Amino acid sequence: MEELLERLLEECRPYTTAGKAADYIPELAKKDPSALGVYVIGSEGKHSWAGDCRQPFTLQSMVKPILLLQALLDNGACAIQSKVGVEATGKPFDAINAGERTLDSRHINPMVNMGAIVMCTLIHGSSYEERFQRLMKLTGQLVGDDTITIDQAVYLSEKSHGSKNRALAYLLKSHGILEDDVEEVLDCYFRACSIQVDCRGLAHMGAVLANRGRLPDSNRRIFPAPLARYVNAILMTCGMYDGSGEFAIRVGIPAKSGVSGGIMAVVPTRMGIGIYSPALDQKGNSVAGIRLLEKLSQELYLSIF
Amino acid sequence: MEELLERLLEECRPYTTAGKAADYIPELAKKDPSALGVYVIGSEGKHSWAGDCRQPFTLQSMVKPILLLQALLDNGACAIQSKVGVEATGKPFDAINAGERTLDSRHINPMVNMGAIVMCTLIHGSSYEERFQRLMKLTGQLVGDDTITIDQAVYLSEKSHGSKNRALAYLLKSHGILEDDVEEVLDCYFRACSIQVDCRGLAHMGAVLANRGRLPDSNRRIFPAPLARYVNAILMTCGMYDGSGEFAIRVGIPAKSGVSGGIMAVVPTRMGIGIYSPALDQKGNSVAGIRLLEKLSQELYLSIF
Amino acid sequence: MEELLERLLEECRPYTTAGKAADYIPELAKKDPSALGVYVIGSEGKHSWAGDCRQPFTLQSMVKPILLLQALLDNGACAIQSKVGVEATGKPFDAINAGERTLDSRHINPMVNMGAIVMCTLIHGSSYEERFQRLMKLTGQLVGDDTITIDQAVYLSEKSHGSKNRALAYLLKSHGILEDDVEEVLDCYFRACSIQVDCRGLAHMGAVLANRGRLPDSNRRIFPAPLARYVNAILMTCGMYDGSGEFAIRVGIPAKSGVSGGIMAVVPTRMGIGIYSPALDQKGNSVAGIRLLEKLSQELYLSIF
Amino acid sequence: MEELLERLLEECRPYTTAGKAADYIPELAKKDPSALGVYVIGSEGKHSWAGDCRQPFTLQSMVKPILLLQALLDNGACAIQSKVGVEATGKPFDAINAGERTLDSRHINPMVNMGAIVMCTLIHGSSYEERFQRLMKLTGQLVGDDTITIDQAVYLSEKSHGSKNRALAYLLKSHGILEDDVEEVLDCYFRACSIQVDCRGLAHMGAVLANRGRLPDSNRRIFPAPLARYVNAILMTCGMYDGSGEFAIRVGIPAKSGVSGGIMAVVPTRMGIGIYSPALDQKGNSVAGIRLLEKLSQELYLSIF
Repeated sequence: MEELLERLLEECRPYTTAGKAADYIPELAKKDPSALGVYVIGSEGKHSWAGDCRQPFTLQSMVKPILLLQALLDNGACAIQSKVGVEATGKPFDAINAGERTLDSRHINPMVNMGAIVMCTLIHGSSYEERFQRLMKLTGQLVGDDTITIDQAVYLSEKSHGSKNRALAYLLKSHGILEDDVEEVLDCYFRACSIQVDCRGLAHMGAVLANRGRLPDSNRRIFPAPLARYVNAILMTCGMYDGSGEFAIRVGIPAKSGVSGGIMAVVPTRMGIGIYSPALDQKGNSVAGIRLLEKLSQELYLSIF
Repeated sequence: MEELLERLLEECRPYTTAGKAADYIPELAKKDPSALGVYVIGSEGKHSWAGDCRQPFTLQSMVKPILLLQALLDNGACAIQSKVGVEATGKPFDAINAGERTLDSRHINPMVNMGAIVMCTLIHGSSYEERFQRLMKLTGQLVGDDTITIDQAVYLSEKSHGSKNRALAYLLKSHGILEDDVEEVLDCYFRACSIQVDCRGLAHMGAVLANRGRLPDSNRRIFPAPLARYVNAILMTCGMYDGSGEFAIRVGIPAKSGVSGGIMAVVPTRMGIGIYSPALDQKGNSVAGIRLLEKLSQELYLSIF
Repeated sequence: MEELLERLLEECRPYTTAGKAADYIPELAKKDPSALGVYVIGSEGKHSWAGDCRQPFTLQSMVKPILLLQALLDNGACAIQSKVGVEATGKPFDAINAGERTLDSRHINPMVNMGAIVMCTLIHGSSYEERFQRLMKLTGQLVGDDTITIDQAVYLSEKSHGSKNRALAYLLKSHGILEDDVEEVLDCYFRACSIQVDCRGLAHMGAVLANRGRLPDSNRRIFPAPLARYVNAILMTCGMYDGSGEFAIRVGIPAKSGVSGGIMAVVPTRMGIGIYSPALDQKGNSVAGIRLLEKLSQELYLSIF
Repeated sequence: MEELLERLLEECRPYTTAGKAADYIPELAKKDPSALGVYVIGSEGKHSWAGDCRQPFTLQSMVKPILLLQALLDNGACAIQSKVGVEATGKPFDAINAGERTLDSRHINPMVNMGAIVMCTLIHGSSYEERFQRLMKLTGQLVGDDTITIDQAVYLSEKSHGSKNRALAYLLKSHGILEDDVEEVLDCYFRACSIQVDCRGLAHMGAVLANRGRLPDSNRRIFPAPLARYVNAILMTCGMYDGSGEFAIRVGIPAKSGVSGGIMAVVPTRMGIGIYSPALDQKGNSVAGIRLLEKLSQELYLSIF
């Protein structure tokens, strides 16, 4: 397996020059665009890796399935779906999903910014500090590391460049979907996006979802199986932004990307995969990362279709 | 003339029950929906009136042509048009005029909220307090009353129910069109919307625009004629929200309505008209007010077409 | 006057190189882009002209106000407005004004293709041949020439390149707004667009509208004054495609342009103006033509604002 | 298995009254809305069924994956994706996926009408008759019945009520995506939608896709495995109209519905399922059919997530 990962990594390295690192906040633009790493954790706990798989980066949109999972745990699936929908929007992740007079909950989903912001308001807690701490605890279990922290520089950078997210949040508030203080909600969201992980953590999270809620090492259940199926399904249809349809055809597994260049992929019953390569395509997905997953899927017949 | 106004007012009174007062902020919903008043000031300074023409109400969207005028005076027409467009948007006044990735300045104009918020940032002044004081001075000249004040209750109500406007402002900021602090800009905008006037003041403002910048009493010029033509033209195409086309056909004169129920109308070279009747149609225009203007236009051949 | 026209024409000639002739059908692309002509007919019948004012070209969108006028004469204003709206759409002339499930009559108006196609179905006649003959008769009166014909080459070119208009017509049919045979309706529309005129004809048509329905020579009324005001008003708000707002500010008179490069302008009570210059801007309006009208408006104070 | 199917069928029968049969063409509205049938064919060829599983109905949108498959066989995946995209559109199946000036191939996919019409033009054949015959042959193999015919009444009804599809096709033509004669292309499309099948045929088709291109009885390959994965993936993300996201969560398998009330479902490596129940929800999917699939998925752990 290690040999295979090394070979595919070398084959995909040229693609790191075919995209560019996110630059909407200065902190992300500082990352080395030539980095490339992959980490695989099998359902039974076997680890394999290659390349820059221990470099730290922030979760960004990859925190969205975690926000969804915590909101599902706290409220149940019905309550979530009454607030936001689950359909692909056919639009970029930060789109203004509003018509002239209406904001249709069916056009928001937990994998786009609007929906993820709503998830923050659905996590239980007496304060936003408490909500965030509960999210951190779940995140720690998912990535298999309870020492995770947030990247302060990225967090502050997000916070000071967050006009688009503020617009989305105030729009939600004007339509009565968000009731709490916008700045407090967004602070929680910006902190969540700034949680620092590495490929190993992403692979661990993928393995927990692949095992439908059980930890790969101990097999201990940390959340019910139906919630894993829920999250995996929405990752399949909406996890790769408006590139999800093509990813389903080319790779064929549930996955979530982030603008930091990470991809967290789930091969149900088989393995979790973590990828890092910050050069992005126009949709915000890692170019070399998708290519690597495509090759891995072909070699190991990972597609679920 | 007084007799004519009295007669038309009685004919139109039934229409005050055909709409409903704005209720998006509690303060506006408190107004008496059966009120109806009209005030006319001829170009040579003759005053005529009927009904509830001295009841106070707030400018709301009728401050938009004043914001535009001040911005034009401070920056010139070219600078304004490089920031926002002048085309009708085909959408409601508070529409999100943004596509997925773009916010096209051609789809914003000074008569919709987004454009009016931008105008606030273009008014000169070392602070937003100074900008607002300059706007108040111009407004005082236009409405012929330098003792005007803002309605504190409406202002505070606007400020605490302003999520949609905050969304619009942060959207402008995220696209680099608005650079100042959003809350400071919006505070200026909310105050401007809360300036208190009556039908007499609107008629005076209409008369100044009809006289292309000269006061109706003294004939003293307070702004250049081309700016009056500029404002009158944009009132014609965009002044009555997305009911401007029908208003052009039925009434045929430049006018601006506000959700407080006022209409400020301009009959170039002939007169200014101020109307007040808070019961609104679905587009946000005064029902009885439009009907009264239509009849007045037919009786006095006011249409410029 | 002639001297003025000659001077302005020379000043505007350089603008003929700043645009390009319409090329969506081959026939229009054959026209000489450097042509420039202007013709003015005063309300009392005085004629003045300069440049290429007798070159023939097709009405194209300039037939839209004639279709509207005939439909108004045959059905009255109420019937027309129940079918299509009068608001500016904020979109290009051939836009698909339909949402996912709805086609809102308020988003169509007689100055955009969809609305003009509907007008064809509202003209009275036992056959489309008879409808077209009635339209030709009205057009002949308006342009002051009962020998007008259609340009066969343009007509056939429109007909064979008419996929977009077919899409619009079938969309109208699918929403129940158009009931007749699509090809028959479109044949009428394509023929109407292909009627051949010159600047003199446009100026005559403008003069009739300026005189609110009376012929400039004989003063004979050919349609009621309120219909002229109706047409002039809609020209003001929607006559220059999505450049109508800027035209209102820069020129300030009702006008209708066509992709053939013509502009028919109305100065209420004063004059009609016909312009020809086939080099168009991106919105489909004649570049030199608008510039010439702007200068003429400044020299003669034509703006109605 | 049969017992399970019978029991679930009874549990789901009440849902047949919770929707209504499609009525956009009169022929479909004639169907008995209380019908409910299910048919399962395992990968190894075992058949099980319950209810009205041999009632005939038309393929409608369920022909879309067959059109895609034939186009893929004739052109390869690259050629298809250069013509149309594969992303979910976030819109209803017959949406006008066009902006003002552009029609973006990325916003069309083979599971919405526009994309399916394009597929017709990509099938090889010297005439549209030959193309259709090739499609019929593939369809016969997929549904395991080479005696299938089209339902003439439905075909003629589609053809005479096809304004919306004509609008879509002319829009494609106006953007250069469709080059052939629109009526010829649509005739092929309407015939394809009118092919008559039953639950058994759908189950057979599902089994072939589940077996990634091999017939369930003989195990004979009729198309390459990668094409099956391609089709299954696009069914997962776009097969149930704009209800695909919720279907992924609730049922978790690739499937395609049609407005006739059929659903063809694929459980990769395990089975094909055919459902029939003509009462539809607002998105055009069979109400009882989805409910039955949901229960079956829970009982047999069919979800691939």
